[in-house]
Amino acid sequence: MNSLLLILVFLNAVSASQRPNIIIMLMDDMGFGDLGINGEPSRETPHLDRMAEEGMLFTDFYTASPLCSPSRAALLTGRLPIRNGFYTTNALGRNSYTPQEIVGGISDWEMLLPEILAQNGYYNKIIGKWHLGHQPQYLPLKHGFHEYFGSPNCHFGPYDNVTRPNIAFFRNDLMIGRYFEEIDINKKRHISNLTEMYVTEAIEFINRFAKNNGTEKPFFLYWNPDATHAPTYRSQRFAGKSIKQSSYGDAVIELDYAVGKILHVVKSNPSLANNTFIFFTSDNGAALVSKTDAGSNAPFLCGKQTTFEGGFREPAIAWWQGRIQAKSITHQPATVMDLFATILEINNLTLPRDREYDSLSLTSVLFNNSAFERPVFYYRGNLFMAIRYGHFKAHFYTWTNSWKQFNTGIDFCPGVNISEFTSHILTNHTLNPKLFHISRDPSEKYEIKASSQEYKSAIAKLKQIYKDHTRTLNPGKPVLNWCDRAVMHWSPPGCESINKCLNPPQSKPYLCDWPH
Amino acid sequence: MNSLLLILVFLNAVSASQRPNIIIMLMDDMGFGDLGINGEPSRETPHLDRMAEEGMLFTDFYTASPLCSPSRAALLTGRLPIRNGFYTTNALGRNSYTPQEIVGGISDWEMLLPEILAQNGYYNKIIGKWHLGHQPQYLPLKHGFHEYFGSPNCHFGPYDNVTRPNIAFFRNDLMIGRYFEEIDINKKRHISNLTEMYVTEAIEFINRFAKNNGTEKPFFLYWNPDATHAPTYRSQRFAGKSIKQSSYGDAVIELDYAVGKILHVVKSNPSLANNTFIFFTSDNGAALVSKTDAGSNAPFLCGKQTTFEGGFREPAIAWWQGRIQAKSITHQPATVMDLFATILEINNLTLPRDREYDSLSLTSVLFNNSAFERPVFYYRGNLFMAIRYGHFKAHFYTWTNSWKQFNTGIDFCPGVNISEFTSHILTNHTLNPKLFHISRDPSEKYEIKASSQEYKSAIAKLKQIYKDHTRTLNPGKPVLNWCDRAVMHWSPPGCESINKCLNPPQSKPYLCDWPH
Repeated sequence: MNSLLLILVFLNAVSASQRPNIIIMLMDDMGFGDLGINGEPSRETPHLDRMAEEGMLFTDFYTASPLCSPSRAALLTGRLPIRNGFYTTNALGRNSYTPQEIVGGISDWEMLLPEILAQNGYYNKIIGKWHLGHQPQYLPLKHGFHEYFGSPNCHFGPYDNVTRPNIAFFRNDLMIGRYFEEIDINKKRHISNLTEMYVTEAIEFINRFAKNNGTEKPFFLYWNPDATHAPTYRSQRFAGKSIKQSSYGDAVIELDYAVGKILHVVKSNPSLANNTFIFFTSDNGAALVSKTDAGSNAPFLCGKQTTFEGGFREPAIAWWQGRIQAKSITHQPATVMDLFATILEINNLTLPRDREYDSLSLTSVLFNNSAFERPVFYYRGNLFMAIRYGHFKAHFYTWTNSWKQFNTGIDFCPGVNISEFTSHILTNHTLNPKLFHISRDPSEKYEIKASSQEYKSAIAKLKQIYKDHTRTLNPGKPVLNWCDRAVMHWSPPGCESINKCLNPPQSKPYLCDWPH
Repeated sequence: MNSLLLILVFLNAVSASQRPNIIIMLMDDMGFGDLGINGEPSRETPHLDRMAEEGMLFTDFYTASPLCSPSRAALLTGRLPIRNGFYTTNALGRNSYTPQEIVGGISDWEMLLPEILAQNGYYNKIIGKWHLGHQPQYLPLKHGFHEYFGSPNCHFGPYDNVTRPNIAFFRNDLMIGRYFEEIDINKKRHISNLTEMYVTEAIEFINRFAKNNGTEKPFFLYWNPDATHAPTYRSQRFAGKSIKQSSYGDAVIELDYAVGKILHVVKSNPSLANNTFIFFTSDNGAALVSKTDAGSNAPFLCGKQTTFEGGFREPAIAWWQGRIQAKSITHQPATVMDLFATILEINNLTLPRDREYDSLSLTSVLFNNSAFERPVFYYRGNLFMAIRYGHFKAHFYTWTNSWKQFNTGIDFCPGVNISEFTSHILTNHTLNPKLFHISRDPSEKYEIKASSQEYKSAIAKLKQIYKDHTRTLNPGKPVLNWCDRAVMHWSPPGCESINKCLNPPQSKPYLCDWPH
């Protein structure tokens, strides 16, 4: 037993002196309640459950936005979307993202995690969804990544190559095909090999570093599959595998299997096994708008697009063999933005001082399972909607979606309809915020009475943090206001060599319409 | 390694030839979502989570009634309440139970699990809540138990010893005190040593058999603490321990700790460790009526008293070292009534043939992790409300509680208000039952359209099972119709020796009023 202990200490010492490899696995619209370890009754995520058993499970991990692009921009910048510009001012409190017609993208002034890592000797690759802008200046290789295999946009349609080009798919800075053409997704049958391709690509990348025997550059792999984003897909061999009898369920099984494969590669290479920090999470809560193909945010309220817990609370697992204690669980409130400061601190780097960060290092949580107090801010677009601090969450504004959208059948809170709370009119509660004890009542079922002593003592603190934050905030320039069909991927770099160039229409910029 | 294997095989051979000890741990109003292993974010049940890791976790385990007395009568008889008489005909579809004024109790004709076990050499003890009637002829020692330490009734009030006697607490067939008097519960502070007393009693009982070195009688321990039933309580040393900051949360922690202590005693005694079958579950879904002290049925809809999944789906763990594969998970739909046939089959006994049973042996599930199709029936009082078969659940009737009760602030579905579904009027859907895919949609959020092919093919099967069941059913005589204040525990046996006899009022039988 003593000799085993000595070996572990020795390995720790080695890994601490090295820059570790880093893998962030970011799911798309996967919900907290989709993981077996988080109680999903079908229990179809054995590899993720094992990853949690070998590492640390986060129960109180948050996104920075209930929608994909802003969430992903926040992760890579360590800053709230309101600071990094991934929001709109076209309408108050609207969620916005980066469809093909978006003009903007990640600002060159923003310093992305891969840029800092590259400056410090890392070799970086993004696989899968990028979503920080698709014009040439916004693509991953312009922002710190050395390799890119995936698409800047979502795979949903409709795209016909006439009024709208099919989504471009890239290897590095060249388009190598388009969705529904070279990159096959059968939307009707929910079949695609894309997750398999992403796994193959990841393993090839990781194995390159294993062969180096750990003596060369460390790597950063940002692995972003999107099979659980509607329209969901899975490869043929996973079709019908889920007890749920849904493509979503099958996609979760395939992604879980993929995570298992990647972990296996890391664990079975001695140069990587104890020297790779892996973090698994999702970009926002599960979208609940499909009646037959939805994920689960249980036990939380509502889903994607909302600032209820179901929109913001994410599944999250940290893994680092030999560094993170197996079977550990943390209730530390943390966010996707914290990965920025955490990964910097692991590399003995500090946050740049020329801008404000919303990122706190989690190293004390990961390596010592200690905890600290900190607020969590729930923004929707440009509107500060809610805040959590300690056990309490206060809603200053609430909204789901507009009556107009709701009446088309899109419901962000199926089965729930709480007056002036899950409402279809943006409702201002700033005078008397709606307060919940988020540990005792994670489902936001039981509003704390404004006349109670508990309310009075909690709300004073929360209001103060809210005021301090909003008073001192300098919003970044919004990059998601303008659209133009001419900026779509009609003829991205690389189109010539595969004969996939299309003629763009004349440029006609217009203010984007954000319905949610 | 080979020698270890040989020992295990040897122990199996021995245990198969012995009648194993049996422990059923039945919680009171604890919800599926209260267990860490089922995803509760606070993760405060490490001992239960470990029990599941060492044994088998059931994800689809059901009660037979969403209320305590009928559920418990069903468990011990292996028969639905509609058969064993634990229902009322005073009003259609009303939940009824055994308060102090109830005249009835378990019929002597019913053959209880402890009676059959006693006939086959078991020594039986019940600790905690009985709830099958409190008049002398209904008490545990008249129905197969050799020892009794607990109370026949719930511990909630109000009781003043003037208009109503305080609840009697028994050792064997004699009252040894009353709640709030000898058996202290501080309702205001939610403090009581009762769970500690129940653990001490359980360990003393188990240790008697450990000392026998396994050569004498096997035991059946029916362990029924009620600390999570409102008003919840916990011993002083657990007060404030829960992240939830609620007495309910503390009570869950104390019960989890108690389960750990009992398991430790079993595991550390060589004569018991591989020869004890333990089953943990709860009597019904968590009661959601308290805003500050409620449990969780996440991810399921509504709670106690209802026939939605939140009322019926239970946390459930089976444990038998050396017999049940560690880390196994089953999705077998099963019920509390199945424990009856299961325990009989473990003892090579078959179900009596003189009556109808709703109990199917789970031995193939427990020992081979196989699965079989079977329906689950959701009754509320005398009304067949819903059925599950395979992936589908059909609601033939839906109801929460009356407007009258709801308007007093009692809400069985906080945060949810779905028209004609979680309604306050008993609603008949028999012509077009409301259908849900219970695996894809465990939260009963997405009703399957009656016009869909999925609906048509599923509903035909479910309607047939419903019809067959209701057409052939012979309801037992209802025992929960009549009340009488004279039958309360004014002067139960034993009251003289502790000077706690009170004068009963004159007998005035009346039809009980069941508000839910």
